[in-house]
Amino acid sequence: MSETSSGPTDARRLGGILAPVLTPFHADLSPDARRLARHCRWLLGHGCAALAPFGTTSEANSLSVEERESLLDAILQDGVPADRLLPGTGACALPDAVRLTAKAVRHGCAGVLMLPPFYYKAVSEDGFFRFFAEVIERVGDARLRIYLYHFPPVAQVGFTAKLVERLLRAYPRLVAGMKDSSGDFTYTKTMLDGFAATGFDIFVGSERFLLAGMRGGGAGCISATANVNAASIDRLFRAWKSPEAEALQAEVDAVRGAVEKVPLIPALKAIVAHHAADPGWLTVRPPFVDLTPAQRDALLADLAALELAMPELRA
Amino acid sequence: MSETSSGPTDARRLGGILAPVLTPFHADLSPDARRLARHCRWLLGHGCAALAPFGTTSEANSLSVEERESLLDAILQDGVPADRLLPGTGACALPDAVRLTAKAVRHGCAGVLMLPPFYYKAVSEDGFFRFFAEVIERVGDARLRIYLYHFPPVAQVGFTAKLVERLLRAYPRLVAGMKDSSGDFTYTKTMLDGFAATGFDIFVGSERFLLAGMRGGGAGCISATANVNAASIDRLFRAWKSPEAEALQAEVDAVRGAVEKVPLIPALKAIVAHHAADPGWLTVRPPFVDLTPAQRDALLADLAALELAMPELRA
Repeated sequence: MSETSSGPTDARRLGGILAPVLTPFHADLSPDARRLARHCRWLLGHGCAALAPFGTTSEANSLSVEERESLLDAILQDGVPADRLLPGTGACALPDAVRLTAKAVRHGCAGVLMLPPFYYKAVSEDGFFRFFAEVIERVGDARLRIYLYHFPPVAQVGFTAKLVERLLRAYPRLVAGMKDSSGDFTYTKTMLDGFAATGFDIFVGSERFLLAGMRGGGAGCISATANVNAASIDRLFRAWKSPEAEALQAEVDAVRGAVEKVPLIPALKAIVAHHAADPGWLTVRPPFVDLTPAQRDALLADLAALELAMPELRA
Repeated sequence: MSETSSGPTDARRLGGILAPVLTPFHADLSPDARRLARHCRWLLGHGCAALAPFGTTSEANSLSVEERESLLDAILQDGVPADRLLPGTGACALPDAVRLTAKAVRHGCAGVLMLPPFYYKAVSEDGFFRFFAEVIERVGDARLRIYLYHFPPVAQVGFTAKLVERLLRAYPRLVAGMKDSSGDFTYTKTMLDGFAATGFDIFVGSERFLLAGMRGGGAGCISATANVNAASIDRLFRAWKSPEAEALQAEVDAVRGAVEKVPLIPALKAIVAHHAADPGWLTVRPPFVDLTPAQRDALLADLAALELAMPELRA
């Protein structure tokens, strides 16, 4: 599938469209590993170059460390290839981040996507550097590839250019890239201009910025809506140099616009539930709540008008 | 020690000064249970009516669930009475919050102090209600007393008056009070006027608001600086109706002002390290960093001028 050519440091690198995979729950709110594995397989067959389970969209911060571990085991056992996985392993507590990251590396995952520790807000650049340095040293494995997860609108803390530069200088091969969910293309441009040429792979956090990101030297996109629209987003990724690129960008923007009218995670689950004819997908963990029936109807009507295609999801 | 008279629902209630107990670490960044237990004993002997371990000041969100559990076991085994403990048990993940809360209740803790799940930001009042309702139902123990931890400057999310009202209506005995660290006395006043008379105990999150809080019907104060200045803060608590109250308030404000000039948690650890003649206390976990020697010297000089007394800390 869509992988960019080898970069300067690694033989194989991630590129293209990645979904931060939705986490399905049973009615009692326990995670549903079977539905998760099935969704992973479907995504890999329908536009996703790789998967980023345990991201924001996965409700990963609503999962315990043990739940994240056992879900990773489950999807690997189900046959999802480790080299197409970029699990989220960030955590507020250093031992949790080390434990999750070490496990991902041990299993041969392509990389890990790490939020900075996000509880404390008045934290210095030194403090964040120290946190990542401790994770890297404690994991102590040259196979580790960390993708920095920059998401100030939710995490409230993030990565300055100076911090990225410092991490890259200290750990040039291990710090491999970034998911930029800032929603601020000025920031994205700073990252692209400053670091993309050195082999630091920048994924935009929404397909709205995919074309602009690719034109600036980006590696692809890791986006919530890839859970339901990866094939179209991947088409844009593959055609970004072509004359149709602007039209393909407008198409994926329209779907994103429809989904963003309501709370994003319950909306995506409602779309999967509808197309898979599986109401079990609707369940979200607190602090989220389900969409109201009216919100759900409006969302599905909007998407029907856009002819969102999710083939074979029932299978 | 300082306990208020029985409220309408419980024979014994917490009141007075509580310290969110600093968590000491070994040089390898593992928690130091022995130093923690010693500090707990010292605090209970020097002005603290009770203790709130695993709060923000405790770097609790930098601890794994297992670490929080084993430190609680350690201080209980050391003889700290459970009915003088209000451990922090809030977490982003429902199973973590349930597990920590159930354990605290099982051990007979006076109550638990719970942050709302703080990762996701666009969360509805319904979502927070659902989270706390799930914790309460899953813990399923009538002895549970939840104190809501309102700290928008750091957690970014918090408790509206409507949410407090809804929780109190659904769980009138179990939802027992609040630590209000908003730093906004208009909010505090809304809580005091709306709920204090019904037996909902409101602790201000900084001694700066202690006198105003007590005049408005508050129950005391749970403050970071109680780790180093509880005796003086307790003197103010006991004398709040007396003519000296304003002067006592000014005294504790002066200490708070000196400590707040530098990052609070490393500052408090530096003060304890100095007075206990125990440099082991200096260690903070990432994402925090130690004070610089210059910051430490300036802080200790400021406090020396204020004659901060920390008797017998060496013992």
